[in-house]
Amino acid sequence: MFKLLKKSNKSDARLGVLSTAHGKVSTPFFMPIATKAAVKSMTAGEVKDLGAEILLSNTYHNFLRPGMEVIKKQGGLHEFMQTDLPILTDSGGYQVFSLSNLRKIKGDDVEFRSHLDGSKQILNPKKVIDIQVTLGSDVMMVLDECVGLPSKREVAELALERTTRWAKQAIDYKNKLNKKSAKVSKQLVFGIVQGADFKDLRLRSAKELTDLNFDGYAVGGLAVGEPAKTMYKVLDYTVPALPDDKARYLMGVGYPENIIESVKRGIDMFDCVIPTREARHGKLYVRKKTGFGKGFYETLIITNAKFKNSKKIFADGRFGKYTYAYVHHLFKTQETLGTRLATMNNLEFYLTLMKDIRVAIKNNKF
Amino acid sequence: MFKLLKKSNKSDARLGVLSTAHGKVSTPFFMPIATKAAVKSMTAGEVKDLGAEILLSNTYHNFLRPGMEVIKKQGGLHEFMQTDLPILTDSGGYQVFSLSNLRKIKGDDVEFRSHLDGSKQILNPKKVIDIQVTLGSDVMMVLDECVGLPSKREVAELALERTTRWAKQAIDYKNKLNKKSAKVSKQLVFGIVQGADFKDLRLRSAKELTDLNFDGYAVGGLAVGEPAKTMYKVLDYTVPALPDDKARYLMGVGYPENIIESVKRGIDMFDCVIPTREARHGKLYVRKKTGFGKGFYETLIITNAKFKNSKKIFADGRFGKYTYAYVHHLFKTQETLGTRLATMNNLEFYLTLMKDIRVAIKNNKF
Repeated sequence: MFKLLKKSNKSDARLGVLSTAHGKVSTPFFMPIATKAAVKSMTAGEVKDLGAEILLSNTYHNFLRPGMEVIKKQGGLHEFMQTDLPILTDSGGYQVFSLSNLRKIKGDDVEFRSHLDGSKQILNPKKVIDIQVTLGSDVMMVLDECVGLPSKREVAELALERTTRWAKQAIDYKNKLNKKSAKVSKQLVFGIVQGADFKDLRLRSAKELTDLNFDGYAVGGLAVGEPAKTMYKVLDYTVPALPDDKARYLMGVGYPENIIESVKRGIDMFDCVIPTREARHGKLYVRKKTGFGKGFYETLIITNAKFKNSKKIFADGRFGKYTYAYVHHLFKTQETLGTRLATMNNLEFYLTLMKDIRVAIKNNKF
Repeated sequence: MFKLLKKSNKSDARLGVLSTAHGKVSTPFFMPIATKAAVKSMTAGEVKDLGAEILLSNTYHNFLRPGMEVIKKQGGLHEFMQTDLPILTDSGGYQVFSLSNLRKIKGDDVEFRSHLDGSKQILNPKKVIDIQVTLGSDVMMVLDECVGLPSKREVAELALERTTRWAKQAIDYKNKLNKKSAKVSKQLVFGIVQGADFKDLRLRSAKELTDLNFDGYAVGGLAVGEPAKTMYKVLDYTVPALPDDKARYLMGVGYPENIIESVKRGIDMFDCVIPTREARHGKLYVRKKTGFGKGFYETLIITNAKFKNSKKIFADGRFGKYTYAYVHHLFKTQETLGTRLATMNNLEFYLTLMKDIRVAIKNNKF
């Protein structure tokens, strides 16, 4: 499923290929987010045209709406949103613990109230696999328990133990399903390492999950508001505890500099709402120079008055010769074309960044 | 500027060509609306791809925001929004009388407060021409006074007289500018017939404007909430009073059946927010059968529960093989891709309708 092609001789950065039911994807990569089965303002085809090779969608959101009955009838998520790109779906663990109300854990069931209509819902490790079978995810994530940072040791330890127990239930169930369905057997499944910022807990989690032999490993419980330094420290001791021959996914990260620092620490996969969410607030990511050193990019707030009259060409003309003044005007007048152009700009920035990182690793310049 | 190619032998429908500085446009046509220098959710290039041959924008809105300083520096509206399609700009008369606060007419100046920031603004017939020179409109509309329906005769008569006086000031000023600028001389200018639903006033307005020799004539003061019957009655006596060799524009109309009935009465040009505005509310226009008889189209509310599970292909696959269920989901989850697909569907419906009308006139079937 994962082929390691090269290790940098300057850092722990790696070049590889993740093989999925919908094709191969070069690592390190960034997944544009289609939370609710759509990348904000764009068709999946347009996101592919920007250079995306894989998308991320969300188990929790799709489960609540449109719901599994619809997805099943529509023939899965790929067919529903009309894409031939691989799709990774996160497990819903993070959303259950961050979005839903009145959450209760009863045995291995998480009972919660939908953030949409207050209806009572249940997820558990097997059900989360079932949902992702229905979605047709190329990469499934197991249900985990994500704790915030900082976290009390007892809380983090309990969450870790539950995460391991759930991971075992999930992979055992998935292995059973594999035997019944060739299609399911091609769906990859990743475990999620927890343990907050306690080194021994992270190492224990990595060991316990590695023993379960997943197709890949995510580092969860980071990018939850902690300082970047904390995140890098956790990666420094967690990543080396993960097997070399499996893909490593840092969930929910991040700013360009976070991605660069994490690639250097051996991470292969990223996803984040930053490029799409910040686009909607008029924040544009713009490359300033080649390389990945300080100041290699800047962010612009397009609604700033200084762009009102600017004749500078937006995104260097890649999406048409619109001026900054025009995109400024679109934001000021709440024309949704503005957020769309900003989204294209930011996604293209992130996707090009990953491409440049891959080239740099290949050329021993990372 | 306008070439009459054919008159139907079954109705007063006409086939023609309007020549503008940005090319020829076949009549009868429909103008997608780019009120604030953008067709909602779409690039001008995408609107052109749907079959649009001309766009409409708005003097009042562009004057207030981004303002003439920006438009001038950006090189005009075509350059600003990046389109090579002809653009007609309405005069702002309707908006001044419907949107702005504290409106006062002092001589030939209309003083009003901006609906955006309450700032005091002034428009007058010459200034409205100046603005449209700066915008670079292919077809300018003169400043008029639009009264509602029903209207008292005295009110309608005063508005008519003011409209004629302003029309004369506008065309005299425009003719003076023509001599100084070859570019301006290629910008067409249309008069706007007023007179509410008083036959003698409409005929008087048509006569007074025709005497001023405009490049085309609009019928204004309709589509302001009156029954369709009233509108058709006004057209029945107004249109024959307009010269055969000039284009005739019915402002702000309308539903497909209104357009068909008005084409039969000799109207050549239309604009309306219906296809784009209703798209944003999830109302889709769908062709049912050929021809223009009762039931030739239907409207669907895509948010209706009956589409939740529908596998029917949206817009017959013209914009990708999305199902009704997917577009339903996009609306339910407030994903702006939904409004964009609906906008494309509705604009394409209107633009195809006009194309079909032109073919039918050509084949003596209208």
